[in-house]
Amino acid sequence: MAIVLYGVSTYNCQRVTSALLEFGIEDFELIKVDLKEREHFSPEYLAMQPFHQVPVFESGDYRLYESRAIVRYFAEKYKDAGPSILGSTLEEKALVNQWVDTEAHQFNDFAFAPWSMEYLMSWRLKRPLDEALVAPLYEKLGYFLDVAEKQLSKTKYLAGNFFSLADLNIAPSLLRVSVLQPELINDRKNVRAWFESITSRPAFKKMLEADKGWRFPYGPFTNEEAQKLRTS
Amino acid sequence: MAIVLYGVSTYNCQRVTSALLEFGIEDFELIKVDLKEREHFSPEYLAMQPFHQVPVFESGDYRLYESRAIVRYFAEKYKDAGPSILGSTLEEKALVNQWVDTEAHQFNDFAFAPWSMEYLMSWRLKRPLDEALVAPLYEKLGYFLDVAEKQLSKTKYLAGNFFSLADLNIAPSLLRVSVLQPELINDRKNVRAWFESITSRPAFKKMLEADKGWRFPYGPFTNEEAQKLRTS
Repeated sequence: MAIVLYGVSTYNCQRVTSALLEFGIEDFELIKVDLKEREHFSPEYLAMQPFHQVPVFESGDYRLYESRAIVRYFAEKYKDAGPSILGSTLEEKALVNQWVDTEAHQFNDFAFAPWSMEYLMSWRLKRPLDEALVAPLYEKLGYFLDVAEKQLSKTKYLAGNFFSLADLNIAPSLLRVSVLQPELINDRKNVRAWFESITSRPAFKKMLEADKGWRFPYGPFTNEEAQKLRTS
Repeated sequence: MAIVLYGVSTYNCQRVTSALLEFGIEDFELIKVDLKEREHFSPEYLAMQPFHQVPVFESGDYRLYESRAIVRYFAEKYKDAGPSILGSTLEEKALVNQWVDTEAHQFNDFAFAPWSMEYLMSWRLKRPLDEALVAPLYEKLGYFLDVAEKQLSKTKYLAGNFFSLADLNIAPSLLRVSVLQPELINDRKNVRAWFESITSRPAFKKMLEADKGWRFPYGPFTNEEAQKLRTS
């Protein structure tokens, strides 16, 4: 059955496409959802994804949303075709799940998502960043990365010495951090090496390559552009 | 190996204890973490849980945090001793994961957690609720429950016609909703029947019973007390 992904090249969608490529699946169709045109609020889209988020996975009449759940589905379905990103033993799998949820809550929902959203809004509305909003989120991002730095002094990846779901899930978001405020990554030695390792994987690079015609739809696109929002 | 849980009877900890009881595990030790005394910020606690959250699971020298990851670990470990809450087929499991993540993000992080936290702060600091903060979160809670209402008109539980991880994870939080603003549940026929079903399970009731000496540590404790914060 043909694989179809509805989305656009935000980090939540890049997570899913890079996962497919990790498992050697290159034959899938991307159907663009134009967020600026509010296509994700159309009745047709809401029938697929009631919370008006991207991406949605489709194969025949089977549909799935929530990017981390989609990636987990691929990891189960194609487990013989790529790296063992779920972990091996029960205890190892649970530590992967712990880091998946830590990324989802402590990193994404409570820090990265609202922080990067404010950059996006500042860029789109041509107004300075709301410093009172971003400052505590920047602190939380730094705190998460301090915890990661400590963990990565003991293990090569977040959940152990193997590339897992948790590393795959965070990679596209960290790429966005590296554009917006690169010192968050560069000032932490182990985080920097890990970031370079997870974003230089062939699947991740292939995803970015394929994404060129379909690039991250919102600015700022460079650190200079991001800095301008901060100092204006 | 003896099971130890560090926590207090908040919904995140109740999720974990009710899961243990679903699988017939009654022999575990609860070690209270006094949040008011900021014990979760002590160096000893931070060494176990760097994000100063409860609960933490411990068995011998194995430790795990993030309540949903702990519940998933139990569901794998005791899969022959209780209900099949992970789903059966690959596609069914993925739908369970979709609803687990929808609960974690759309319900919890973006609506319920900050909404119920504001009730708690209002109660503790003896000040009126910040209506500008809670109003949009109340809307989001209602929206999530509208989506659930529609889903529950088609299936008995969130992810299908079986009690799953997603139902188990949300139950203690919905109990809190039923104290703070019960109309959110009562005004939706299917949600109400489902809520009654998942909170009347023997394991859930046993958890509440065991919790009496160790009850929800913060007010408001009744709907009348909650209403007073809204109208003052």
